[in-house]
Amino acid sequence: MKRIAFFLVAVASLAGVVASTAGRVDDQAAPIFGVKIPAGYRDWKLISVAHEEGNLNDLRAILGNNIAVKAYREGKLPFPDGTIIARLAWNYVPSDENNKVFGRQQSFIAGSPTNVQFMVKDSKKYAATGGWGFAQFKDGKPDDKADLKTCFPCHEPVKARDFVFTRYAP
Amino acid sequence: MKRIAFFLVAVASLAGVVASTAGRVDDQAAPIFGVKIPAGYRDWKLISVAHEEGNLNDLRAILGNNIAVKAYREGKLPFPDGTIIARLAWNYVPSDENNKVFGRQQSFIAGSPTNVQFMVKDSKKYAATGGWGFAQFKDGKPDDKADLKTCFPCHEPVKARDFVFTRYAP
Repeated sequence: MKRIAFFLVAVASLAGVVASTAGRVDDQAAPIFGVKIPAGYRDWKLISVAHEEGNLNDLRAILGNNIAVKAYREGKLPFPDGTIIARLAWNYVPSDENNKVFGRQQSFIAGSPTNVQFMVKDSKKYAATGGWGFAQFKDGKPDDKADLKTCFPCHEPVKARDFVFTRYAP
Repeated sequence: MKRIAFFLVAVASLAGVVASTAGRVDDQAAPIFGVKIPAGYRDWKLISVAHEEGNLNDLRAILGNNIAVKAYREGKLPFPDGTIIARLAWNYVPSDENNKVFGRQQSFIAGSPTNVQFMVKDSKKYAATGGWGFAQFKDGKPDDKADLKTCFPCHEPVKARDFVFTRYAP
């Protein structure tokens, strides 16, 4: 029994290492927009960070491919075709370890990952949704259609910033 | 007068663009450990994110150079010489824009930058402090000695993880 437990831990650790190398990658395309997980997105440059309370209750990082980050830094709008913005998120959890050092409850860190979202710019392919394709993946698997239908309506209020909420954090 | 104001705004914008390209860089070394701001740190890969309440009241991103990220992903401890870990932080501010879309107060984003900290691994040079040199910069300028004396004592409780608090966020 001990041996089986050890084996399972070893397999889980290995899977963790593989998955963490460049983010969880799966070949399945998300519905509606047909977006796949872009290879190597976990290595992309940081655009900004945020915390959402409520049902989401997460800490998030927004990363961008080179086209995205270049456009952000140059203040260039609309984002050029080929731009991909990735939103990673993790459960918002208090850190007892950090709080002990600070001597008070104040530290919140990234727990287990929740899901990963992508916005992909292709002004022709996605003309009906402001030039953006949207996708959401959980554990490397695409989420169902219903979720993706709400993406564009939600992003419409920031049309003046090419439908992108996140600003670059210097 | 209008012309001068325009000129100042233009200079400030230009300075902002330059500074935001790869993080604020200054050639001054921080006291005690002699650490300078590493070139291009703003382009480094993401290790994790966090939120500190209390006096800090920030959102933070922890980035690493390639040596750091490789060691993290391989679960390799102690971190090898040449590892540099960067902690960027921004004021924790509510986003009225995001909250309007969500229909409730729930969104907190990165405001103005507070300061940037670095941990630099050199097991010989910094042998007295666990092999780590510490530095803190505000607006590209190193902070005074007093602040840096508190770094190592604060990191000692996580000696088992080579004095590094942050875990890699998958």
